[in-house]
Parts: sequence; C-alpha cells; structure tokens
Amino acid sequence: MPTEMSIRELYQLAKDGTTLELDQLDFIQLQGWVRTNRAGKNVSFIALNDGTFFKNAQIVYSSDTLSNYAEAAKYLTGTAISVVGKFILTPEASQPFEIQATEINLEGECDSTYPLQKKRHTFEYLREIGHLRPRTNTFSAVFRVRSVLAMAIHQFFQDQGFVYVHTPIITGADAEGAGETFTVTTREDGNYEEDFFGKHASLTVSGQLQAEAYAMAFRDIYTFGPTFRAENSNTTTHAAEFWMIEPEMAFADLDYSMDVIEDMLKYCINYVMEMCPEELAFFNERIDTSLLERLEHVRTSNFKRLPYTEAIEILKNADVKFENNNIHWGMDLNTEHERYITEKVVKGPTFLIDYPEEIKAFYMRRNDDGKTVAACDLLVPGVGELVGGSQREERLDILEKKMESLGMNVEGYQWYLDLRRYGGCQHAGFGLGFERLVMYITGMENIRDVVPFARTPRNLNF
Amino acid sequence: MPTEMSIRELYQLAKDGTTLELDQLDFIQLQGWVRTNRAGKNVSFIALNDGTFFKNAQIVYSSDTLSNYAEAAKYLTGTAISVVGKFILTPEASQPFEIQATEINLEGECDSTYPLQKKRHTFEYLREIGHLRPRTNTFSAVFRVRSVLAMAIHQFFQDQGFVYVHTPIITGADAEGAGETFTVTTREDGNYEEDFFGKHASLTVSGQLQAEAYAMAFRDIYTFGPTFRAENSNTTTHAAEFWMIEPEMAFADLDYSMDVIEDMLKYCINYVMEMCPEELAFFNERIDTSLLERLEHVRTSNFKRLPYTEAIEILKNADVKFENNNIHWGMDLNTEHERYITEKVVKGPTFLIDYPEEIKAFYMRRNDDGKTVAACDLLVPGVGELVGGSQREERLDILEKKMESLGMNVEGYQWYLDLRRYGGCQHAGFGLGFERLVMYITGMENIRDVVPFARTPRNLNF
Repeated sequence: MPTEMSIRELYQLAKDGTTLELDQLDFIQLQGWVRTNRAGKNVSFIALNDGTFFKNAQIVYSSDTLSNYAEAAKYLTGTAISVVGKFILTPEASQPFEIQATEINLEGECDSTYPLQKKRHTFEYLREIGHLRPRTNTFSAVFRVRSVLAMAIHQFFQDQGFVYVHTPIITGADAEGAGETFTVTTREDGNYEEDFFGKHASLTVSGQLQAEAYAMAFRDIYTFGPTFRAENSNTTTHAAEFWMIEPEMAFADLDYSMDVIEDMLKYCINYVMEMCPEELAFFNERIDTSLLERLEHVRTSNFKRLPYTEAIEILKNADVKFENNNIHWGMDLNTEHERYITEKVVKGPTFLIDYPEEIKAFYMRRNDDGKTVAACDLLVPGVGELVGGSQREERLDILEKKMESLGMNVEGYQWYLDLRRYGGCQHAGFGLGFERLVMYITGMENIRDVVPFARTPRNLNF
Repeated sequence: MPTEMSIRELYQLAKDGTTLELDQLDFIQLQGWVRTNRAGKNVSFIALNDGTFFKNAQIVYSSDTLSNYAEAAKYLTGTAISVVGKFILTPEASQPFEIQATEINLEGECDSTYPLQKKRHTFEYLREIGHLRPRTNTFSAVFRVRSVLAMAIHQFFQDQGFVYVHTPIITGADAEGAGETFTVTTREDGNYEEDFFGKHASLTVSGQLQAEAYAMAFRDIYTFGPTFRAENSNTTTHAAEFWMIEPEMAFADLDYSMDVIEDMLKYCINYVMEMCPEELAFFNERIDTSLLERLEHVRTSNFKRLPYTEAIEILKNADVKFENNNIHWGMDLNTEHERYITEKVVKGPTFLIDYPEEIKAFYMRRNDDGKTVAACDLLVPGVGELVGGSQREERLDILEKKMESLGMNVEGYQWYLDLRRYGGCQHAGFGLGFERLVMYITGMENIRDVVPFARTPRNLNF
C-alpha cells in the first residue's frame, strides 16, 4: 500500500530536507484536482492541487511508466485524480520537488465546459460562480486565511481564559433603528402575536447586551457569530450578513479594553503570518503591494491613544481640503478624517477616545466632563476604523435616565438594568467586524470577496 | 502595587505548591462576586467567585486588619468587590488556600432583592432569569464546558488542516419541508419579489450543500454555526435555534467519515476532561451519577459498525416489548430501538450503517444493492443518536434522476450538480448537533439548559 500524503506535508518535507525518510517516499499516494496538464508525446506534467496547500505539486508521468499514458494526457483542468509515485527533491528546479507517477487514476471527470480554465477571471465574474471560486488561487488564499484567522481569534481568547458565548441570533429586543433589522417569522401577514414566538422577532444586530450578562458571571467572555443588517446599501464594505467578535470584560476600564484590542490584533497578524506565509506573499504580489509592510508596521508599533477633542483641533488646523470640511466638535468623523489622522498625523494605529456622548450608543459610560463617553475607535492606516469599543455605563441611575431621555422602552430592558442592580461592576468591551479584519489582512477590497456566499441587496444565490 | 491574580491561577499555584514564589503572594489583588459572607464579630469569611474558576476562594478578614470591617461584614451575596491580601496555603483545611485580606473594596452593590440567594432553585425558575443563571454553580459549569467544547471542535479540525467555512445563515434555497423554516423578510405582506433579496429568504437548516462546494476546493472543511427549525414542538431536545458542526471531506468514503467521527468524539471528551475536571466532577455528583463512567467508556471503546438490516433482525428477535413493536425493514428507528441496540446489544457506541434509501436524504450515496444508502448514525448509550453522516452521491446521473423523482426543483440546484460535473470525486461528511454534544458531556437533560438564551415556541426572552 502506498503512503497517503497531502501536498502540504510534501512541501513541509521538502523544506525540512534533512529529516526525510526517503524509502517511505518512494511509494506515496496523492489525490487532488488537475490545475494544468502539459501533455507531451512521451513525458507530461500535471500541476496538481489537493486543497491542503496554496501551491501545486508537479506530477511527472511518461509513456514508459504509465500504462494509461494516453488517457491521462487527456485529463482536463478540474479533473479529480489520484496519483501513485515517487517523491523526488528537485533543488535545482523552480519547484522544490516532483512526483514521478507510476499510476494515475481518474476520480472525477471534468469537461471543457468547466468555467475555471487557465485564464484570469474578474472578481465580479467569480462571484457568479461562488461554488467554484474557492478553487482559484485568490479565493483559496482568502478562505484559508479566513479560517486561520477565525482560529487565531479563538486561540487568543481561550488562552487567556475567556469563555466563548453563543448569544442568540433570533432576538425579541425592540432594537432602535428597527428599520434596519430583518424580521424572522413563519407568517406572511405580520400578525406576530400568532407567530412562532408570540411576538415580533428579528435577526440580531449585536450580541453585546447578552454578552454583558455573561461577563458578569465569567468575568472575561467573547462572542463570535453572525450578525445582520437590512441596510439597503450596495457598497464594498456592507453585507446583510457578517460575523462579529464581541469580547466583554468585567472589572475592566477603557484602557484595559484598548490593551486587549492591541494584543488581539498583533496576535492575529502574527498567527496568520506564521500559518499562511504563501498566501500573504501572494496577496502582497497580486492584490496589495503594501500589504506586508502595513502588517509588519502594525505588528511592531505601539498604538497611540488620542482624545476625539484633540483630533478635532488637529483636523481644523490641517492643511488639506476634506470633502467634508465642516470640522466641528460633536461631528461624526468620516473615513477621510479618520485616515488623515492615522496615516498623516500619527502614521500608525490610533485609538480615538472620549467621543461626544450624542454620537455614541446609549450604553457607553459617561465621562466626568459630562459631555463625552469612554468610547474608543481603533483607526488603522489604509482602512480607517477597524474596531469600536467602550466602557459600559455601570451606574444604574445614570443609565436609566439616559434610556428614558432617548425614549427607549425601559421596561423591556429590565434584565439589562438588573446587571447594574446586582453586583454590577465596572466593565468594558468591544466589537470587531470579522470580514473587515479579513479584508485588512488580505488586502481584498470588496466584502463580497471575503465571505463564502455573500448576502447583499437582491443577491441571495447558492 | 499588589499583583493581580485570578482564582484559577491561585488554585493552580496551590496545586503546584512547590513552585510558589511566596514573597510575590504576600500582596495580591482579586476581584469578584460574593457568593456567601459569614460574618462574625471579629473574624469573617467571604466565599468569592471571580468567574475564572468553578470553585470559590475563601477570603478571611478580621476587625484587626480591616478598617472597614463593619462595612464589609454587610456585603450581601452578589456584591462585586476587590480584595487585597496575602495568599496562604491551608493544606489541613477543606480548601487548599485562603486569602487573608488587608483591604476589601466595594465595586458594585447588591441588595437583598437579588434572586440568587443561597438556596436551591429549580432549572425552570432559573430559565426565567437567564441573564443571572450563569452565576450559579450548575450553569457556570455548563457554559464553561460549552465554551471549552467549542474550542475542542476547532482545535481538532484545525490541527488536521480542515478549513473552517462560514456557510450562509440566510438562504434562498427552496428547502424541502419549507413549513419548518423561518422566513427572513423586511416586509409584512409576503411580497417577496419586492423584498430585500428580491425573493423569498429563510434561515438555514443546514450548511451542508454549500460545505460540499468548499470540500471540492479545500478537501477537508468544517462548518460551525447556528441553524434553525421552526418546528412547533415543546420537547427537551428541540430548540428553534441551535449550533451545528458539519465537516465535509473530499476523497473520503463512509468508513473514513466514521473514523473521523470516532476520533473527534474521543478528542472532545479527552479535551473537556483535561480542561474542566472540576465541572465534570460536579455534574457527576449532582446531575448524572453515571456521567464519568459513561464518558470513560466511550473514550476507550472501539465504536462498532452494524448494518441497519442486521439491526432490524436483532430488534425483531429481541425479547423486549417496544412501544413501537412493529419492527420491519424500511422503518425509521425510534430512540427506544436505538438505545436498545447501543445499550443492551452492543453495550457501547455503535454506528448503524446502510439505511434504506427511502428514509434518508436525497444527497446520500446509493449502495450497490440498489436499496440502501451509505449513511451512518452514531448511537451512544444513554442518549441514542448523536451524529449522522453519509457518503454523498457523486454520480451526476443518479443524483439528477433521484432529485427529479422526488419532485425537487432541479433547476435551482444546478450549482450543486456542478460539483458533480466538474471533478466531482467521492466525498463524505456528517452533522453534529452541538447542543446534543453539550448535553451528552454534561448530563444535562433539557436543551434549554445548555443554550445561553434558548429560543423555543412562544419563548423569546432577553
């Protein structure tokens, strides 16, 4: 019986050349898909990809050794095959090894109608064949990095004892801005009292409030799950369905939260650099030539903390013409302002902190100045905002009054207020859009290209 | 400045007694919540829990050393405090160490209306205060195990190079049995053409079909995400929202898939046993006294593989009266039958394989006998079915004919059929209900008690 090997294992072996047990490698078996098949009269070459590694293995086969040579020479791009043969190091060639095949068997045919012929396709076209695009170099790289990055997140938090909490996807909360949520129903008439849950239900926009309840039990927790917006906007950064990470920490203030954000980002970048060097090199060559430099910079820099109020002064005095040039205290910053701060002024990752209370969410903790809240947005060069966090308002009386003044349904939030009534200590947390992080670390510019099957307005294929 | 410590770290230090650097432990700080406060005239004891560990730390404080002694003595159950003091090993006492407090500060008040006073509460009652129940011993243990188990799943698959795929939550697939899915909409009139996606959308019941597309690119992949059923049944095992793990492997047959299932389960049990010994001991004492024995048995046994057809013969000849005693080939087995096989006949984990085609899903591979499919259900003592898997039908002609004969909308599945047209090799996969696994490993008997905020008919709180 031949030894079953993956192409990832073979590249590893070729790299660690000295530890090879060559007799075991005389008779190995691979399975995968033909990327190209350059057939000659007596000697031919298949570039085989088995999905385990970004690069292909070169399979050499000849009419001398292969009884079905003529048959194998006809296998088209996309064909699934199994190969038995000998592993040979080829240090002088462009690929580090090749397989000299003694057997090639058909596992699954592929004809010439296969859409992924060897030529460049636009990302737009590849979105239409979302079920096939992970077989291309770009999307193989994107979705392996996405997977590795998800693991980095889990590893980072679990290593520090954070408890992973599955906050609910279907929620009955009277979300503010309900126009932007999806309704979940089993009816077609909007009679929610007779509906499955006996009341109106929608898809969650954030698990934070429920996450706070668990932080008050486990101290450090995080969520990692899908969230939804029914926002009818066709941009490169919006999708109706996306994944969020929402850590929440008890006995923590805003500064502590920013420490965690900084550690987390650096950990994630290091993790992907270690696990996916081939993919990152590819992105740096083909997608964004400043990618590795940018990641290296973030990985090694100290993130600056800058009060919003100072940032406004800086923007007012900036010697540039912004599209929105009406800079004033109390405004929400646009991406152009954020990028100016992080790219031109600080020249590195920057936490803007202490935003005006009016432009931030109800649960953020009011600072002693009475007009700002203990919030932070992390701005990074090339992107703008990457993470948003805050210390939460733990003072029952202040929170209740604020909710009332905002016209919220305070009755429906009694459970949330209980978290302040019963041992409600100082706590803080943040939210990280997972797709935004994948885009940041791959250089991909459209959210549709970092989600396996993206959901956007009037687009629900597969 | 005192050294910040967690109660988990202190228990670890007490266990590894010899490596203590005692001078550092003379001045430590803890933060957490009062579980009990036994106040005496001059000496008092607080059982403090900080959420990092299942057990409490004993805080000793006295009127000699604490200036706010009278104040501290009044702190009620649930109060958040910080404690500064000295760590002392107490090998002769029931707890391995205590903290002799020199400072106790209030971090968050808690009054006597706090529902979690020191007495037993029913699980039913605790469901009503789902935002507070993770603070109890039982639910602290359940939700830590849930988190650790989720990590075990990721670790197991990532270590073997499986790619984690986020299959979509909102889907446009014309699911069979559409009555059991939730509709996702922004309208109240059922006019889906004018809806957000321009057609009817629903919440996914399984990511498998999309997962297959990714297995055909990456070879080995897995999903881990929420799935939904609008089934109006109030049982202890059904919830409208639950998490599923759906691995899918190319170049794999049913046997290979069963190997992976067996390895995965053993890995998960070992992982939780190593990471959560205190929690498992608690479950074994309070929830299910056969738990540890059962887990140990599964962990060390070889899972048997038994054809459905043989199982039917065994059940026919069984010397017991089943509630459903009409045993015949072609029937769907009930839990009583499954448990009989795994508990009385095999006395261990059992894969039933090769089920009649009629009672299984359309995508399962037809066996050469023409009447069974390459499916497996893993049955385990005490529960019945835990995992279901199958080899998938990779033969385009057979799959197409079958879909037509079942009256499916073949046109809408062309992308799925493409996976057979273009290098569609042998492949297999399985589905594991995460909540069922949590129940199995904790002994908890109601799915509502292993989901942070469960969604069931007419129940959508928090």
